[in-house]
Parts: sequence; C-alpha cells; structure tokens
Amino acid sequence: MIDQTKFTLTEDRIPTHWVNLLPDLPGEPLPPLSPATMEPAGPDDLKAIFPMEIIGQEVSMDAQVEVPEAVREVYKLWRPTPLYRAHRLERALDTPAHVYYKYEGVSPAGSHKPNSAVAQAYANKQAGVNRLVTETGAGQWGSALAMACAQFGLECLVYMVGASYDQKPYRRAMMESWGATVIRSPSDTTEAGRSQATHPTGSLGIAISEAVEVAAGDPGTNYALGSVLNHVCLHQTVIGQEAIAQMEMAGEDADVVVGCVGGGSNFAGLTFPFVRRVLRGQAKTRFLAAEPAACPTLTRGAYRYDFGDTVGLTPLMPMYTLGHDFVPPPVHAGGLRYHGDSPMLCGLVKNGLVEARAYRQNETFAAALQFARTEAVIPGPEPAHAIRAVIEEAEDAKLAGEERVILLGLSGHGHFDMSAYESYLAGELQDPEFSEADMEAALGRLPDAPAIA
Amino acid sequence: MIDQTKFTLTEDRIPTHWVNLLPDLPGEPLPPLSPATMEPAGPDDLKAIFPMEIIGQEVSMDAQVEVPEAVREVYKLWRPTPLYRAHRLERALDTPAHVYYKYEGVSPAGSHKPNSAVAQAYANKQAGVNRLVTETGAGQWGSALAMACAQFGLECLVYMVGASYDQKPYRRAMMESWGATVIRSPSDTTEAGRSQATHPTGSLGIAISEAVEVAAGDPGTNYALGSVLNHVCLHQTVIGQEAIAQMEMAGEDADVVVGCVGGGSNFAGLTFPFVRRVLRGQAKTRFLAAEPAACPTLTRGAYRYDFGDTVGLTPLMPMYTLGHDFVPPPVHAGGLRYHGDSPMLCGLVKNGLVEARAYRQNETFAAALQFARTEAVIPGPEPAHAIRAVIEEAEDAKLAGEERVILLGLSGHGHFDMSAYESYLAGELQDPEFSEADMEAALGRLPDAPAIA
Repeated sequence: MIDQTKFTLTEDRIPTHWVNLLPDLPGEPLPPLSPATMEPAGPDDLKAIFPMEIIGQEVSMDAQVEVPEAVREVYKLWRPTPLYRAHRLERALDTPAHVYYKYEGVSPAGSHKPNSAVAQAYANKQAGVNRLVTETGAGQWGSALAMACAQFGLECLVYMVGASYDQKPYRRAMMESWGATVIRSPSDTTEAGRSQATHPTGSLGIAISEAVEVAAGDPGTNYALGSVLNHVCLHQTVIGQEAIAQMEMAGEDADVVVGCVGGGSNFAGLTFPFVRRVLRGQAKTRFLAAEPAACPTLTRGAYRYDFGDTVGLTPLMPMYTLGHDFVPPPVHAGGLRYHGDSPMLCGLVKNGLVEARAYRQNETFAAALQFARTEAVIPGPEPAHAIRAVIEEAEDAKLAGEERVILLGLSGHGHFDMSAYESYLAGELQDPEFSEADMEAALGRLPDAPAIA
Repeated sequence: MIDQTKFTLTEDRIPTHWVNLLPDLPGEPLPPLSPATMEPAGPDDLKAIFPMEIIGQEVSMDAQVEVPEAVREVYKLWRPTPLYRAHRLERALDTPAHVYYKYEGVSPAGSHKPNSAVAQAYANKQAGVNRLVTETGAGQWGSALAMACAQFGLECLVYMVGASYDQKPYRRAMMESWGATVIRSPSDTTEAGRSQATHPTGSLGIAISEAVEVAAGDPGTNYALGSVLNHVCLHQTVIGQEAIAQMEMAGEDADVVVGCVGGGSNFAGLTFPFVRRVLRGQAKTRFLAAEPAACPTLTRGAYRYDFGDTVGLTPLMPMYTLGHDFVPPPVHAGGLRYHGDSPMLCGLVKNGLVEARAYRQNETFAAALQFARTEAVIPGPEPAHAIRAVIEEAEDAKLAGEERVILLGLSGHGHFDMSAYESYLAGELQDPEFSEADMEAALGRLPDAPAIA
C-alpha cells in the first residue's frame, strides 16, 4: 500500500514573485552584443521587438520580480501544478532512492511554456501592442502563446518550422483553435524566409529570423521568445518555488534536481530557486541537465558568442553553441532541437554547478515507456531525456546503497507525440548522433565575435 | 480582475464511498433479461465475464459502496479533479449566470473513464483474473483500461472500432504505450467479428460482441465495460461528490447540472449525487443531458428492452434505444455514438427528472471554440455538447435576468480530436441527423422482448 503520492498546493500558494538569479551569479553578467556593431547591446537594440517591461526584466538585478496580479489569475487555471512521489517507478527500479516529479503537463497547452507566454502576453497588452509574433518547432511554445494571447485579446502569428508544420497538423489545429494564425516557415512573407527557401523543411533558427523580421517592421507587433533569454527563465521560476514548498510538505530535500534542456527555460524554471539556495550556502543540491545526443549543446558545444537565429538578426549571446546555422537531425524531441542555450544556464554549466549529460533517442523512449507504465502519465519526448537521467541516478543510488532524493522536472505530456511512440514501439526509431565533423563545421561557422573572457 | 477561479480539494477529500442511486429510485429496479430465455438474468448469467465483486456492485441496494483503499491510491494520481468558475466565458456571454465546470481531463487518459477502469481492474486483479478484454470507439475507454491494467499488472486486450483504428492511430499508440494489445474490429479472431465482416468499418456494438465472446471463452480473461451498467455509473460518482464539496467552497449551489451522454456514465457520475439530494427533498436541481442529433438516444429512442451489443450476446436492458444494430453516422464525438444508454439514467429521463436535448455537430464545435478561447482548455467533442447546452442555459438566464448557477461536467480534453477541430475550422464538418426513416428501421429491428411495464 502506498501512503501519499501527490502534494497539492492551493491557489494562494502560487508564487507572488519570480526568482531572478542574475544578481546571485558571480561577476558581472556578460552583455549581449549588437549584431551590427558587435558592441554590447542596450535597451535600444531590443525595444523594436520587446516592451520596456520585458526589457527591464531581461537586465534586472533585483533578486525578485513581482508577478502581476492579472498573470497570477491566469496561472490559476492550472497552477499550482502537482508534485508526485514516484513510488511505482521506485519499486520497478528496486531502488532505495526517493523519486519526486513536478508535473507541468496540466497546463492547457500541455507544458511549462504558458508560465512565460502568459507573462509576456500581459506585458505586451499593457504596452498597447496588438499582436505578438513568434516561432515554434515542436509546437509547445506556439500553443502556449496562442492560448495566452486569447486570454488577453491579442492577435497571434506563429511561424512554424516546415517539417513540424507538415508532420504535426494537430499542434497547428490547436493553435488555430485558440485563434492564432500559423504560417509554414520558411515562407515567402519575409526576406529571411525567402533567403532560406533552399531549406524547405525549415529550422527553429530560420523561423526565429522570420518572426523577428515581422516584429521589427511593424510598430503594433512585438516578438515573443519561448526560451533562452533571462526574462523567460525568470517567468519559469514559479515551477521551482512551488517544488521547494511541496518538497517541504513531503518532508524531504532534493539531493539532485534533474531536467531536460532545449533552450533552457524549463531547466532554469525548475532549478534556479534551488540554485539560489546553493549559491547562498543554504543547501548542497546537485543539478543534472539532460539533452539529446543529436543536439548536444551543453556537452559538446563551444562556449562562445553566437546569434540566437540562423540569419543573424538577433543580438549575440554568450553561450554554448553548435553554430547558429546548425540544423539538428529530426529527433522527436523537437523542443530540444536548438543550437544554443540560455546564457545564465550556460554560465552555471561552465562554472561546474550544473552537470550536463546527453542521451540517445531510443534510450529516452525506453525510459518514457517505463515511466508511463508505472506513473501513468505519458511524458513528452523532451522530459523523457530527464527521466532517462533520473533512472541512471536511481540505479546509481542503488549501487551506492543511498536513499538519494531525486527531483524530476516533468515539463509536459506526450499527447501530441504519439507518432514518435508508435515508431519506437515498432522498433523504427533512429539514433542520430552529433559527429566530430558536425562539430568542426560548427566551429568554422561561428561569427567573428569577441571571445568570452 | 477575477477573484478566484479554481476550487481545489486535497487528496484526503477523495470520496471514500461511491454513491449508489439504485435504492433511491422509485419502484423495483427493472432486471436485465437473459438473451437466451428473455427471463430475468441473475448473477450466473454474468459470472463468466465479470468478477463477483462487480456483479455485487451491479445489483447492490446499499446506498453507498466503499472505495477500496488501493483504488483511492491510484485515484490520487489525478483526483480530486479541479472545479472552476468560468468567469471568462460568463463575460463573453454577457450573462448574469454563474457557470462552473468540473474538469475530468486531468486524468492520465484524458477523461473521466479511469474512475471506473481503475475500480474494475482492481476488482478483477483481486479475483485472480490475468487479463481484461474490452472494446473502444473513440479510444477513451480503451486508453483508460490500458492505463489501469498497467497499474495492477493485468494484461489488456482492446477491440477498437475499425473506423477509429484507421483514423486515430495516436489513441492506439497510447494504449500500446501502456502495454495493451489493440485489435481492429471486426476481426477474424472471433465468431462475432467474422459474422460482421460485411461492416468493415465496424461499430461499438460489434466490438462489444467480440470482446464479450473472448471473455466468455477464456476462464482467465474477464470483460470490462466502460459505461451503461450500474457499477460503472457507481464508480463515476466520485465526480459529483467532489463537485458538491467544491460548490460548497464556492458558496453556491447548482440550479442546473449539465453533462453529455454517450452510454451515460459521465452524466451519472456527475449528477447522481445531486439527484439523490433532489429525490430526498434536500435540493431543487434541474438536470440537462446533451447528446448528438446524429445519435439521439434519449430524445428520439424507444423505451424498450434491447441488447447492449450488435450480435446479441449481452443481457437485454431496459433503456431508450435506437436499435442494437444501429450504426450512427461518423460524427467526431465518438464517445457518444452508442445506440442505448444507462438503464438508471433512462429511468430518470422517463420520470422527467432529467431533461435531454440533442445538438448538431457544428453548433457543438462552435461552443467548444468559444470555451477554448475563454477558459483555455480545449474540450473533447463529447463534452462540447454539454457546453452548447450550458451556453443555451446562460443565454436563457440572461433573458430571464437570473443569476442562475450552472454546473458543467467537462468530461475530457480534445487533444486526440484535433483533426475534428481542423475540419470545423476549415468549414468542412458535416451535420448528420437521425431521420424518421432511421427511427422506423430501428423500431423494426428491436428484439422480441417483453414491453416495459
């Protein structure tokens, strides 16, 4: 008999502030660089596409930032999200480890993405913007922004990576159901898109270029990014703050916190409130970032300034990168197919506070199935990478004979990824891996920017 | 600014008992009839396919039945489910009505179905059964049973209606991800299936015949039905009990409770705890059952004894029916395409306690989109019928100038139904309706059973 498996917070426990880790990090933050001058970019470089409130959050040195009341109201539709003890998985692994998971798939869009989408939509609405434009790969961010725009009466335009547009008509229908307009990228609606017509299946980098171009050229339209930037990581910290409160309810503290990394916002949102405690000497938590072997940014990338998009319209950011025009192989974890990562997260990896591991597609789906058959939730292919890492940790704890407490970030469900499960069950899933040749090519394509000190 | 939109119960508020409405109903319950003799069927007619615990629940005259602790443990994975005040929908409708919705889509299978699947899987596991066999149309029940069987280490075999099997590969992949075996129906694995090979797209009635045949012929295999029968309605009453507690938290009582009806288990689960209060003179709630115009069992069917399946293997039940071999047009609300309905619910309709209304496909999808764009959740096509009825009630309350309190049962999400939304958005959805000719044919095909007194 299992005692208690779920730790529930009531709505009044939705965090009132976001955790800003920037002031806790050692040294001065490395500035983004203007793509035109390669000099540090200022607010003026961003205000064509972001509202001042968001720009302020991007560079804020305040330890916490208040969540607007209207944003908390929308959060109430699915927050606080549940924390579970994975008793059934523990028994299947026969491990002394205690495994907990924080589940963000209960949001209407099915992932953690709405935490930032709602905050960005509200800030833009307050700034008098009529329309937001963005890009989406797997569809999670586009869905989240479409949903958030519907809540605040904003128009929403989504450039969807061509390959996903063709393979995932249901994600497209979801965005359209919330009222968004979805355009296949590369498109002929932008210069950036026309310049990339030779890549008909598109990429996240190309779609970002298209969206940024539209926002820069239309005063009533702003751009919204779903990961990487500081303000997106900031918004996601509701996850980790709730998790800390729920781990207290469970009467345990996490020895290791595990999440998957695409652009880093899910990982940041879960871990940054825990990282702050470590940086302040209040805890000794380890952090484990799981990424795909097909797009191993943190484990294989170069730590350099690089563009956020393919065409080179965005500021350059200091990060681990596989090269801004790298097009990852078509693994099903579409949300993890990005050449770079959040500069803040990259700094933590560089400083050794966060350990990164890369996993192949088949081993992550094996882990996902084991999770589904024990804990019932069918995970998205992205958090399946984190589940694989958790299983490694739980097996290691068994070898060590330790009651290790492991906290998993389960960032979303796999309801729109069942074709990937179908392929896995049929034994037809490929295991693409990043090669030495890929790496050499990536290094050769990096922009001529200053080295990071 | 919106005050409070969600009413959250902690796990200790998961009901400890199911509500059995049978002893509250006026008169003696009408017995099912044996298909062989047309005489009242007894436990012996059922024990080849059901465990005694379930048979006992089917005929119990106890006012409440205890929920086994192991079942409550699994319920904790998603229960208690949230109750919301639909402030945003109310504003969009400009109605003085207060609309609440109880959301069952947070279960791992995405609907209310696991409430009974878990209870049935556990009862069969306790009885020493190795395998459960069932049928599924839209896929909700098959998914729920696959998930429940994985929790208790049972094998699961699902006969999936041919048309759904072809159109919904992702529901199939979901069941297989939980370890179930899925067979397209009609199949050549059963006599019933072979006899219906002339209906290659299948029907729920044919799939039931196949599953019952397999269960009857294998001592280690039992059958599990996802709706209609008393014990299934019983298991679902956790919904209504939680809703009563949550409406108390909201400080309101429902004037009208609205749900969709396929076989009746969702509607029963939501309403029966409220109906008991009405029957005992403790409340004056109205009840509204929404069904598709393409399969209008409660609004157009004959109140007669009929089989539960196409071939005629199941006992005959007293219910509104469109004829056991009626194959409804392929509307997207696959969960509502059943020729009969729960005998208990049919009795309440017959007695005037429950009002039934039928809606066409396009008007239900229009309602679903309005709901998605205000309340964020994308509803399944089945509860979209109930949403349509709620909008009618809210508009009527506006005309009457009443602060009517409306409670909606939102039985599941539409994540596996996005192709239907796609068709609706493209203006390509049909509006099939049950015709007079259909009705005449149905009446001509009813079995030669005693009339209902």
